[in-house]
Amino acid sequence: MMSNDIVGRLLGGDRRALARVVTLIENNAPDARSILAELHAHGGKAHVVGMTGSPGAGKSTLVTQLSRELRRRDQRIGIVAVDPSSPFTGGALLGDRIRMQELAGDPNVFIRSMASRGSLGGLAAATRDVVRALDAGGFDTIIIETVGAGQAEVEIVRAAQTVVVVTVPGMGDDIQAIKAGILEIADVFVVNKADRPGADQTVAELRMLMSLDAERKEKPWRVPIVKTSAASGQGVPELADKLAAHLKSLRETGQLASRSGQQARSEMLALLNQALQERIAATVSPEEWDRLIEDVVNRDRDPYTAAEIIARRIGMV
Amino acid sequence: MMSNDIVGRLLGGDRRALARVVTLIENNAPDARSILAELHAHGGKAHVVGMTGSPGAGKSTLVTQLSRELRRRDQRIGIVAVDPSSPFTGGALLGDRIRMQELAGDPNVFIRSMASRGSLGGLAAATRDVVRALDAGGFDTIIIETVGAGQAEVEIVRAAQTVVVVTVPGMGDDIQAIKAGILEIADVFVVNKADRPGADQTVAELRMLMSLDAERKEKPWRVPIVKTSAASGQGVPELADKLAAHLKSLRETGQLASRSGQQARSEMLALLNQALQERIAATVSPEEWDRLIEDVVNRDRDPYTAAEIIARRIGMV
Repeated sequence: MMSNDIVGRLLGGDRRALARVVTLIENNAPDARSILAELHAHGGKAHVVGMTGSPGAGKSTLVTQLSRELRRRDQRIGIVAVDPSSPFTGGALLGDRIRMQELAGDPNVFIRSMASRGSLGGLAAATRDVVRALDAGGFDTIIIETVGAGQAEVEIVRAAQTVVVVTVPGMGDDIQAIKAGILEIADVFVVNKADRPGADQTVAELRMLMSLDAERKEKPWRVPIVKTSAASGQGVPELADKLAAHLKSLRETGQLASRSGQQARSEMLALLNQALQERIAATVSPEEWDRLIEDVVNRDRDPYTAAEIIARRIGMV
Repeated sequence: MMSNDIVGRLLGGDRRALARVVTLIENNAPDARSILAELHAHGGKAHVVGMTGSPGAGKSTLVTQLSRELRRRDQRIGIVAVDPSSPFTGGALLGDRIRMQELAGDPNVFIRSMASRGSLGGLAAATRDVVRALDAGGFDTIIIETVGAGQAEVEIVRAAQTVVVVTVPGMGDDIQAIKAGILEIADVFVVNKADRPGADQTVAELRMLMSLDAERKEKPWRVPIVKTSAASGQGVPELADKLAAHLKSLRETGQLASRSGQQARSEMLALLNQALQERIAATVSPEEWDRLIEDVVNRDRDPYTAAEIIARRIGMV
């Protein structure tokens, strides 16, 4: 009843209903799941863009500029800023949010920050659910922005249809780091702060790295490298064009469906793993856990046998 | 029978038996688990050291120098070099292995490289198992060396008792990146290539970062920052001393047991998640999976309900 009400209001564009649902998701409230199940049926219209890259690459300013450009194109924008690193980096995150403040007054822009809650799986799931709510709420483009560029960020932006990797000139070792896992997920590269010296060299290095990636050559989409200056706004309209072009390419090549399929599969596996953990918590007492772990640590029992005992207790063997 | 034989030979110090077990682990062979279960009872004597840090920080050269120093202290050394990034970085890994070549002739040093196999969980599990085999094989220090410093590397080095984070002077943005998840896991910091300008500044920055970490202040172990030059070997004996001091501190404060307990818990949860995936694969046909995923993508069904259907099918609800 109350759930139907909030769903109806959210679908009708009510910001307070949306904010309330996002809070329910963040608090992992029991109500959240039935609401999200209803909302799922009304989604699939938004373009979900993931934005990742090293700290200091100017992602927040770029997101702000991109949002302004998309607003000029009359889109409604949702921004989910995710920080999977320790609570320790809270300061930097706060600074970024202040930079986005200028968007906060616009009723057609919805911004929400999500900090780490200890579990990467939990954060990735909550991010997916917030995107689901924004999608049902009729936002045209939803930007998932991450703070860093680690494995955690990669996992989070995988929920996007278009992944933008942001770098800046003169990050030699950064390009090295980009190789490790990030290159493969990029649909669009941005060299931000392109007014700095070395921008063209960074573009050349990226092109060279991509030319080494044999798998990429098989793909219909040629990853563009866009030079931007988030401070002046230079290159931002081109970035917006490339994002739209990528979505179009995904649609035309049938890749949108296959990407959605992979994402649904990952989400279901994550939900099942979560169900496993809940089942363990409900079936095996903390004392029993502690006893088994003590046995493993003391080498009275091996971890494989100990895990099998738990698997039996929860009926999984 | 054959399994008993190989276990006996490995425990007796036979290198070929050890190499064979490591290969069984890498191939995820059905025999591997019963062998490892036996080996677990004979472990717990080695000092497991994890070494992580940015690409280009000179970790491989440092591992080589550290191993020489520990050999001078009459230790037997196992080295597990792990690359959780894409197969794309295979070249760099190969270069590193060549640098370690000088150790390869020593019968008291065992080196094995492990590359990504698509699944981070699989790689982390295989690394744990190789460490288990080396531990049972009587190696005094086992070094887990990772290629990069991302979330994947963090997960892998969590299997260690002592985590060393390696950085080099002049990585301003690197220090930024260190904040995100790596700072918390460091038991020892190394500023390598300390003959370069800016080493003292990097040390000062690290000290400042650590002073911001309130949790650290509660802990009995004060994380040392060791300046090394892996090329000349300078600072390496001090690093070896600090590693030994950290192990001693873990023992004296009872933290060795609590750390082992946390590691056993993580390993069991990982084993249970793996069992879940195997159970799904054995119970749910690929066609049934595909149908459910199609329903979710087409929004005829929500992912929570779809996951629940699978959970019911495998008897988990």
